[in-house]
Amino acid sequence: MTRSKSDKHPEASARRGFLRTSLLGGLAALTAGRSQAEPAPLPVPPWTHHPGAGVGSAPYGQPSSFEKQVIRRFLPWMRATRESSVSFTPLADLHGIITPSGLHFERHHAGVPAIDPAQHLLVIHGLVEQPLKFTLQDLLRYPAVSRVHFIECAGNGALEQRGAQLNKVQYTHGMISSSEWTGVPLRLLLGESGLRKGARWLLAEGADAAAMARSFPLDKALDDALIAYAQNGEMLRPEQGYPLRLVLPGWEGVANVKWLRRIEVGERPWEMREETATYTDLLPSGKARQYTFIQEAKSVITSPSPERPLPGKGAQVIKGLAWSGEGKVKRVDVSFDGGRNWRTARLTGPVLDKSLTRFEIDWDWNGREALLQSRAIDETGYVQPSYRELRAVRGTASMYHNNAIQTWLVHADGEVENVQLG
Amino acid sequence: MTRSKSDKHPEASARRGFLRTSLLGGLAALTAGRSQAEPAPLPVPPWTHHPGAGVGSAPYGQPSSFEKQVIRRFLPWMRATRESSVSFTPLADLHGIITPSGLHFERHHAGVPAIDPAQHLLVIHGLVEQPLKFTLQDLLRYPAVSRVHFIECAGNGALEQRGAQLNKVQYTHGMISSSEWTGVPLRLLLGESGLRKGARWLLAEGADAAAMARSFPLDKALDDALIAYAQNGEMLRPEQGYPLRLVLPGWEGVANVKWLRRIEVGERPWEMREETATYTDLLPSGKARQYTFIQEAKSVITSPSPERPLPGKGAQVIKGLAWSGEGKVKRVDVSFDGGRNWRTARLTGPVLDKSLTRFEIDWDWNGREALLQSRAIDETGYVQPSYRELRAVRGTASMYHNNAIQTWLVHADGEVENVQLG
Repeated sequence: MTRSKSDKHPEASARRGFLRTSLLGGLAALTAGRSQAEPAPLPVPPWTHHPGAGVGSAPYGQPSSFEKQVIRRFLPWMRATRESSVSFTPLADLHGIITPSGLHFERHHAGVPAIDPAQHLLVIHGLVEQPLKFTLQDLLRYPAVSRVHFIECAGNGALEQRGAQLNKVQYTHGMISSSEWTGVPLRLLLGESGLRKGARWLLAEGADAAAMARSFPLDKALDDALIAYAQNGEMLRPEQGYPLRLVLPGWEGVANVKWLRRIEVGERPWEMREETATYTDLLPSGKARQYTFIQEAKSVITSPSPERPLPGKGAQVIKGLAWSGEGKVKRVDVSFDGGRNWRTARLTGPVLDKSLTRFEIDWDWNGREALLQSRAIDETGYVQPSYRELRAVRGTASMYHNNAIQTWLVHADGEVENVQLG
Repeated sequence: MTRSKSDKHPEASARRGFLRTSLLGGLAALTAGRSQAEPAPLPVPPWTHHPGAGVGSAPYGQPSSFEKQVIRRFLPWMRATRESSVSFTPLADLHGIITPSGLHFERHHAGVPAIDPAQHLLVIHGLVEQPLKFTLQDLLRYPAVSRVHFIECAGNGALEQRGAQLNKVQYTHGMISSSEWTGVPLRLLLGESGLRKGARWLLAEGADAAAMARSFPLDKALDDALIAYAQNGEMLRPEQGYPLRLVLPGWEGVANVKWLRRIEVGERPWEMREETATYTDLLPSGKARQYTFIQEAKSVITSPSPERPLPGKGAQVIKGLAWSGEGKVKRVDVSFDGGRNWRTARLTGPVLDKSLTRFEIDWDWNGREALLQSRAIDETGYVQPSYRELRAVRGTASMYHNNAIQTWLVHADGEVENVQLG
C-alpha cells in the first residue's frame, strides 16, 4: 500500500497551484489587460432587475425547478406491483450525510397507508407485567433522543450480487438513506411495561396492509432501539412510517418496521414471512442464514460514477459514502487500479455512529482507463470484502446483505461503467 | 442553585414508576380481566384493509396531509412588502437539530430570485493576485466539507426587545433554523486567488434585486467560512440562496449572503446600507455598535410554549433549544420560578459547534402558576443574559442581537403566556 504525501493533511489540496493548474475553466483570469483590482464590471443578470417572490409564496418550501431531475426512481420491471416495490435514492446528486426526507429510498410490502395519527395506537403486550398503549401525543410527552442513523435495505445491491451490472449508482446502491431520527428509547417503554420471565425476543408489526412484522432480540431493544416519530426535524414522512416507526440503528431496513402498531414480547422469534421465506441468506450448503440483522461495513464512490463522468484528465477530487451497522467508520481506502494498491481517503464531515460518512481523495488522472474502488473499515476493524471474498462465504445464490466492494471502470473519455471484479 | 438527583442521570426519568403514575392516558392497562400475555385482539384500522400508494407516487416526497398546519408563517403588518419581509420557522412543531429545508425561516430584502445555475457565476476580485470566476460545476469539483450550523437573523426577537409580547414561539424565536451545509471552504478559494498586501476585509454581494451586500473580516474567511451549495443533503433551496450562499457559522443571518455572485477583497469595510442604516445596535449614548456579527448564546423552551400548553399537572418533560455563535453549548439551566432557582437540564442529541442543541428537564408540576425560563452557557463560559442585564448594556432603542432569557408564564389551566421579566 502506498500513500501520497497529501494523505497526511486533510486539506493538502488547498495548497495553491494544485487546482489552478487543473481546473482551468474555473480558474481562468477574469480579465486580461486591466488592473487586477478593478476587473470589468460584472454583467447584471436578469433576476437582479426585478424583485423576486415574497415570503408566504411557499409556506412549505420546495427545491428549485432547476433541480427537478433529482428524484427517487424505480425500475418498473423489478417487481410485480408498485405497492410491493422499491424506489431508489439519487446518491450521485446528494451531499453531506443527511438524505432529504423527500428523497429517502422506499421499500414497501403493501404500499403506503394514509394513517390518521389521532386514530393510531402503539400497543406493547405479551410477556410484560403490564400491557400498555400509547397515542402519538403520549409519546411526544416522553423524554426524546435524536440521532443520525442510516437505514439500508437488506436487498441493497441484491441484483448486483446475482450478477447484474446496473449502470447507475442510484440503482446499485440507492437503497440506503440517512436521517436524524427523533423518538423515545424503546427501553424506556419496556421499563414502564416491565418484562416477565422468559422475555427474550420482540415482534414489531406495522399497520400497513401487509401487516409487515419482524422479530428482533431483546438486547437490541434495550440498547439503542428508538420508537421514532420524527425524521430530519419534522414528523415522519408517510413513506417512512408516519406516525411511528421502529428504528433499529445499523440493522437491515425491513426490521425498522414502519407504521408501527404493536410490539409483542415473547420467548423466541415468531418466524414470520419476511424472516423465513425472504430476507434470509441462502448458503452454498443449501441452508439459509436467518436473523442476520447487521448491515456490515460498506462504501461506494459517488463521483465519479455512471451519473458523474470525469470532465477531463488532471486533478480530480474523488467523493463517496461509507457506513457500518457496527458503529463508526474508522477509515476508507481507495484504489485506482482495481484493488492492487490502496490509499487512505480523508473523512470530510461528521463521523457518527451507524451513520453515512463522507470521504474524499485527490487523484491526478492520466487520462487512461482505470478501475476505481473504495473499501470501508469500521471501528471493530472489519474490512469491507471483495466479491470474491463475499462469495467464498455466501456462494452465488444469496441476494441479501451484499456489501462487496464496487468497481467503476473509468474509460479514456471519462465515462464510468459498472464492472464486477472478483 | 439547587439540583435534583435526576440531573445526574440523563435517563433517570426512565426509571419505572415515574411516568406510569403521571401519564395515565398512555399507560392505562390495555385490558382488564384477561391474561396479560393475551390481550384482546387489536381492532384492525381502515388503512390495513387495502394496499396503499405504491412507489413512484411521489418521486419527491412530501409531509403527511395531517401535518399541513406545520408551515412557515409571516406577520402581514410587520413589513411594507412581502418581498422585504420575514417568515418564521414553527419551532414548537420541530424535533432534533435539523430544520427541514422547507421550513427554514426566510428574510429577504428584494424577494427570492429564480436563478438559472448554468448562468450564475461567483467572482473573487479586488486585492487578490489573480481574479477568479467559478461556475457551480467548478465548485462541485473542489474538496467539500459538511457541517451542521444554525443561521439566526440578527433581528430574531427584535419586536420583543422593543417591548412586544407576541404569543407564539414561532414569532418570538422563529428566525433561527439549523441545517447541514455543504460547500467549499472559502480559504481554499482565497488560497487559489492569492491575497495582495493590505487585504483585511471582504465584501459579499448577492444576485437578488437588492444586490444585498455585506462586509466581513478576513479572519472569518480564513477560519470556517463556506461557499455553500448544498443544504440538508441536496442543493440549496431558492429561499436560502440557490445556487450559492456564503455561510459564516454563528454570525448574524444577513452576513450569510444568499445568491452569492461576488466576493471582493479590500482593506476596510465598505459601509453598505445593511451595515450602516440597519443591522447596527443603537446604544443609550446615541452611538451605534457596528459589525457586531456574533449571535451570542441563547435558548428557548419550545414545550411548553404558547403553542404547546400543558395537558395537566404532574410529571412533565420540558423541551427546548439552545445555541451559541461562539461554539458549542456547554450547559443549559432551567428555572421554574422566574430565575430565582435554576436546575441543569440534560442535552439530548448531538452537541455540535455553532449548531442548535436540544435540552430536556423533568418537572413535577403542582398545577399552580409558574414562570419558566432557560439560559444557555457556552463553551467560552458566556451566560445568556436577562432582559435587565441586556438593557443595562444596550439600552431600550437597540433592536438587533436580542439574546435575553425568555419567560413563559404557565397558567393554572396549563395555557402558556409570553411575559417579560426584567
